[in-house]
Amino acid sequence: MMKKIKIIEVGPRDGLQNLETFVPTDKKIALIKKLAGAGLKEIQIGSFVSPQSIAQFRDIEEVAKAVRRLRSVVPSALVPNRRGAEKALACGISRLIFFFSVSSKHNYANVKQSPQDSLKELKNICRTYTDLASTSIRVDLATAFGCPFAGNVTTAAVLRMVEKVAALGVQEITLCDTVGFGHPKAVEEKFRKCFRLFPEIRFGAHFHNTRGLAQANALRAWDIGIRSFDSSVGGLGGCPYAPGSSGNVATEDLVYLFESMGIKTGMDLKKLLNICAWLKQILPQAKLSGSLFQAGLPRTHKLSC
Amino acid sequence: MMKKIKIIEVGPRDGLQNLETFVPTDKKIALIKKLAGAGLKEIQIGSFVSPQSIAQFRDIEEVAKAVRRLRSVVPSALVPNRRGAEKALACGISRLIFFFSVSSKHNYANVKQSPQDSLKELKNICRTYTDLASTSIRVDLATAFGCPFAGNVTTAAVLRMVEKVAALGVQEITLCDTVGFGHPKAVEEKFRKCFRLFPEIRFGAHFHNTRGLAQANALRAWDIGIRSFDSSVGGLGGCPYAPGSSGNVATEDLVYLFESMGIKTGMDLKKLLNICAWLKQILPQAKLSGSLFQAGLPRTHKLSC
Repeated sequence: MMKKIKIIEVGPRDGLQNLETFVPTDKKIALIKKLAGAGLKEIQIGSFVSPQSIAQFRDIEEVAKAVRRLRSVVPSALVPNRRGAEKALACGISRLIFFFSVSSKHNYANVKQSPQDSLKELKNICRTYTDLASTSIRVDLATAFGCPFAGNVTTAAVLRMVEKVAALGVQEITLCDTVGFGHPKAVEEKFRKCFRLFPEIRFGAHFHNTRGLAQANALRAWDIGIRSFDSSVGGLGGCPYAPGSSGNVATEDLVYLFESMGIKTGMDLKKLLNICAWLKQILPQAKLSGSLFQAGLPRTHKLSC
Repeated sequence: MMKKIKIIEVGPRDGLQNLETFVPTDKKIALIKKLAGAGLKEIQIGSFVSPQSIAQFRDIEEVAKAVRRLRSVVPSALVPNRRGAEKALACGISRLIFFFSVSSKHNYANVKQSPQDSLKELKNICRTYTDLASTSIRVDLATAFGCPFAGNVTTAAVLRMVEKVAALGVQEITLCDTVGFGHPKAVEEKFRKCFRLFPEIRFGAHFHNTRGLAQANALRAWDIGIRSFDSSVGGLGGCPYAPGSSGNVATEDLVYLFESMGIKTGMDLKKLLNICAWLKQILPQAKLSGSLFQAGLPRTHKLSC
C-alpha cells in the first residue's frame, strides 16, 4: 500500500469562510505564501462564490492572481457552479473543488438547491473540464458522516452519491465530516465500501475536530488506506452548528500525528507553528483550536521532519 | 479478544491535584457520588500523600470514609509509599494505586527519590498486601511515553521497569502518558512488547490529551487489546509542563469514542455531561477541556448508551 501522504491546506478557504471580520487581501496572500513555504503542496485559496453568499471571498480573484504562479504549490478553489468554475479558470486556477451535500437539507441550506441540481451543475462543469487537459476536478461530498439537520447519513446514501459523481468521469472524491459527526467505525465502514465499489476513484478525507475525534478518525482512515487529508492551519475555523467548538483538524496537529508515527509529510512543523503565532497576532478574533500550538512540541520531537 | 471495556475515573485525583483552589470536602464527595451514578465502576478518589506535598488532598481521609461503602463502585486511591498505603487501608480503601516514574528525573521531581527507591517502597507495600486477601494493587508507570525533563523514554526502559514490578507479584500495571508525549506508534510498540513479554500482567492505559492525541492513542490501544483506560470527567486537570493545554482525556469524550464504535461502556453520557455542567458552576476556575461538553452530542447519537 502506498505510504506517501498528501496533506491539503484548507485554512484560507474553510478556515476563513466563517470569520465575520474581513481578512485583508494582502494578509490572505501572505498566509498562502507562508503555507507554501512550510511545505504545503496544495492549498485551497478560497471559494468562487458570489460576495452576497460569502463576503470573505469578495477578493478571491485578486488572491488567485497573486498566488497562481507560486512555485511548488497547486492552488485550488471551491466552485459551487459552472459560473464559479469559469471565473476560477479565468484567474488561472485550474484545480477546482466542486462541493455539495449528501444530505438534501444541508445542501438546500448551503447552496439553496437539491443534491440532484448540484449534480447537474457538476455535469456542466465536467463537460467544460473534459475539454481542458490542464484542469483537474475534485468533488467534496459534504455531511458524508452526518447532518446537523437530518442527523444520520447512511453509508448507502454516500455510496449512491459517489456512484453518480463517478458516472460523470470524476476521479477524486473527498468524504467530508462537515460538522464533526464522524467516528472511527463510520470512517472504516464508509471508506472501505467506497474502496471496494469504486476502486478507480482516489478518495480523500476531510475531518473536523468538533467532538475531538478528528485525529482518531485520521488514524483509522490512514490504517485502511486513505492518503489524502484536508486540514486547516491552527485549526482555523469553527463549526457554525456547535458554537465555540473546534473546526477543521489543525494542519500542525495532523502533521504531528503522522510525523510522530514515522510517516513523512514533507512539512516543516516549526514553520507551521510560526504561522499559528502570526495568525494569532493578525487575527486575534479567530479561534485557534489546535492542540500543538497551545502545548508546544514535546522535548522528544525532532523539529526537522 | 475480550471486548468489554473498563473506564476508570481519575478526575477526583488527577483532575483536582493541580488545582490551586481547595475544593471543599462535600463537593469532592458529591463529585464521586455523581460519577458513580453515571456508571463509573472504579473511581480514584484522591491521593494519600502528605498535605505539604499536595494540599488538595488534606481531606482524603474524610472523603475516603464518606465514599468507601458506595454501591457498585470501587474507590481507589494513590499511595506513594507504605505509610500512604496503611492510611488508605485504615480508611477502608482497599484498592491501592502505587505510582512512580520510569524517568529518574521526573521521579525525583515528583516524589523526591529514585525509581529504585520507589521500587523498595513498592516491595514494602506488596509484603503488606500479600497478607490481605481483600486488597488489590495496581502500579502506574509515569512518563512511560516521555519525560518533560529527560525527553525520550525508551520501550526498553519501560520493559525493564515492568519486569521489576512484575517480579514483586503485581498483576496490574498501567502505562501513563503523564505529559502527553505519546502517539499511536509508541502506544502500539510499547503495549505490544508488554503483552508479549508479560502475558500474565493486566495492562492499562492512562492518556493525556496535551497535544490532542489522546483519542487516537486510545483507539490504537483498543485495537491492540488494551481494555482498561483512565480518564477524567470534563477533561478536568491540566499539564503543569504545558500551561493552558488539555490534561487527562475527558471521560465523556472517551465514552463517546467507544460508544460511537458500538463498544458498550455502561456509562450514561447525558449524566456525564450534566456533571460537566455542574463542575463548571462549582469550579469556575477549573479548565474543562473536553470536546463533547463544548460541542454537545450530535443529532445522530442515541443518549441511552
